[in-house]
Amino acid sequence: MILEVATLDVKAGQQDDFEVAFKEAESIISSMKGYLSHQLQKCMEVENRYLLLVRWETLEAHTEGFRGSPEYQVWREKLHHFYDPFPEVVHYELISEQTKS
Amino acid sequence: MILEVATLDVKAGQQDDFEVAFKEAESIISSMKGYLSHQLQKCMEVENRYLLLVRWETLEAHTEGFRGSPEYQVWREKLHHFYDPFPEVVHYELISEQTKS
Repeated sequence: MILEVATLDVKAGQQDDFEVAFKEAESIISSMKGYLSHQLQKCMEVENRYLLLVRWETLEAHTEGFRGSPEYQVWREKLHHFYDPFPEVVHYELISEQTKS
Repeated sequence: MILEVATLDVKAGQQDDFEVAFKEAESIISSMKGYLSHQLQKCMEVENRYLLLVRWETLEAHTEGFRGSPEYQVWREKLHHFYDPFPEVVHYELISEQTKS
């Protein structure tokens, strides 16, 4: 399992439209092969900043499966015009975790 | 519930020592009032980069409770010397989430 992390800076004044568009688009990503779960989070300190966290079974499920799919073209059309600059996307592997007992 | 996000750049060659020290230190954070869960993740693209995700009941549980506690001094002593530069820490609120059905 890997974690995709994208820091999304949305153009000023477009946050509400972005959140509506994301709600419409999220069924695209959640229907992809190898998708496990995702969260959209909004930053409390930095205006217009969001964090997209997506869990995938493998790195390739994201970088090849999703990005190479026809569905990705729809995702891109719905969401990419909100971002400035275009987001950096990186991937992480879990090292350690705990939950309150 | 809020999400604390810290991007941690560990000094070159100190990753193994950092991971051992983190394992020793994580019981400090998980015993704090208002703590819910945490994950340490390691970046697949950027050498020496980690991501610390901590879920807290409230923003103040982190910024006032944990950072103002004696336990924070121990946490800081065990971990902060590994970081260069000193990490930016921000907080996020959940906007939307889905899990594979």
